[in-house]
Amino acid sequence: MRLFYDPNIAPNTSSHQLSEEESKHIVRVLRSQVGDTIGILDGKGHLYTCEIADAHPKRCLLNIVNADFETQSESEIHIAVAPTKQMERIEWFVEKAVEIGATKFTLLDCKNGERARIKTDRLIKKAISAMKQSQRRYLPEIVELTSFQDFLKAHPFGLLAHCYKEEKKDFSEVFQSKDCPILIGPEGDFSESEVQQALEQGYIAVTLGTNRLRTETAALYACMQAKLLIGT
Amino acid sequence: MRLFYDPNIAPNTSSHQLSEEESKHIVRVLRSQVGDTIGILDGKGHLYTCEIADAHPKRCLLNIVNADFETQSESEIHIAVAPTKQMERIEWFVEKAVEIGATKFTLLDCKNGERARIKTDRLIKKAISAMKQSQRRYLPEIVELTSFQDFLKAHPFGLLAHCYKEEKKDFSEVFQSKDCPILIGPEGDFSESEVQQALEQGYIAVTLGTNRLRTETAALYACMQAKLLIGT
Repeated sequence: MRLFYDPNIAPNTSSHQLSEEESKHIVRVLRSQVGDTIGILDGKGHLYTCEIADAHPKRCLLNIVNADFETQSESEIHIAVAPTKQMERIEWFVEKAVEIGATKFTLLDCKNGERARIKTDRLIKKAISAMKQSQRRYLPEIVELTSFQDFLKAHPFGLLAHCYKEEKKDFSEVFQSKDCPILIGPEGDFSESEVQQALEQGYIAVTLGTNRLRTETAALYACMQAKLLIGT
Repeated sequence: MRLFYDPNIAPNTSSHQLSEEESKHIVRVLRSQVGDTIGILDGKGHLYTCEIADAHPKRCLLNIVNADFETQSESEIHIAVAPTKQMERIEWFVEKAVEIGATKFTLLDCKNGERARIKTDRLIKKAISAMKQSQRRYLPEIVELTSFQDFLKAHPFGLLAHCYKEEKKDFSEVFQSKDCPILIGPEGDFSESEVQQALEQGYIAVTLGTNRLRTETAALYACMQAKLLIGT
């Protein structure tokens, strides 16, 4: 069954009208017809099995045949990462991390960061398609660029993956599946004062192994390790 | 120190002349000058620290100041994967897997595969730049497209990640760091007969978790799990 995303579909209704954009996509592009069955994810736990009632190219109408709800896992994988200079690298990371099971992303504005601004709409598009691809029920939140200091204020604890020669814990020893964001720095690494601030606040410095990894690789590696620790 | 790759640099020599292409790159593009220090990786364990003796745009001459050799780890991470339809996805996988620590790649020609042929030269380029990026000493081998049957003949044992509803082992329970290739199928999965052949030969079916992963994501996830089991 082909899956689509529509956050506006209301629970406990028997029918739903798709947006003009989705209607055009489903009717004009995919040539779907009356009677065809499609699935709609709302990104909030529901999978709606729907039948096309009116294949209108602008106001496609669906009959909701079945609504299945999945409660969200309590485990969190929150990756806070400094966006890479090349947009495609951070887009790629978001796609893969959603497939693996990341639940939240924050874009970190660091001293050595390579981007002063970044549009999240393209990242959200990547997240949506990855959610459909991996048949996940919840669309991870993507938080706009946030200064390192504001992030520390908002999150009392977390893990920090920096590259300075200081004592670090093994990721698997200290990761927690709740309220434990994983911070990944820019190519130029976190500044010494950023590392200091985080450690003084109680953040734990972790190592992701000896290889020197690109920002997006380190972020995905951390995400995969977290997923393995949480279990399927 | 900026790193370059040249497999032809001979051990136990005091000087080396770069290829015309590398000479042009270093002298014309990067504007390197006599006396500048650069590093040359040969992909076979050596890191040569060199000083530019003659910044000739076609025959750049280097004095080898120091030669450092690192023996290769005995642990292997051999990923045999069906190439994806989109070249960029498999290129991306190779780049990331080299950063993480994969030691060998084989491109698998499967019944449900999406590519009848694939050029490895672009993949090798990706592997070289990832080797430099992650400062690895050994360039992983990339084996040309190989039929599933020929691969089984050449490799008596391995792990098979398929999506059929059959009993599977947890990857971490059965992975071995030697002579244990990890086989990742195409988007359409391995055929039932391919799975049967492998299992009859003693291959072990493994699960990579419950999420439905794209081919390149599954391949990298397996690579990262292997790396975690081997340790840094």
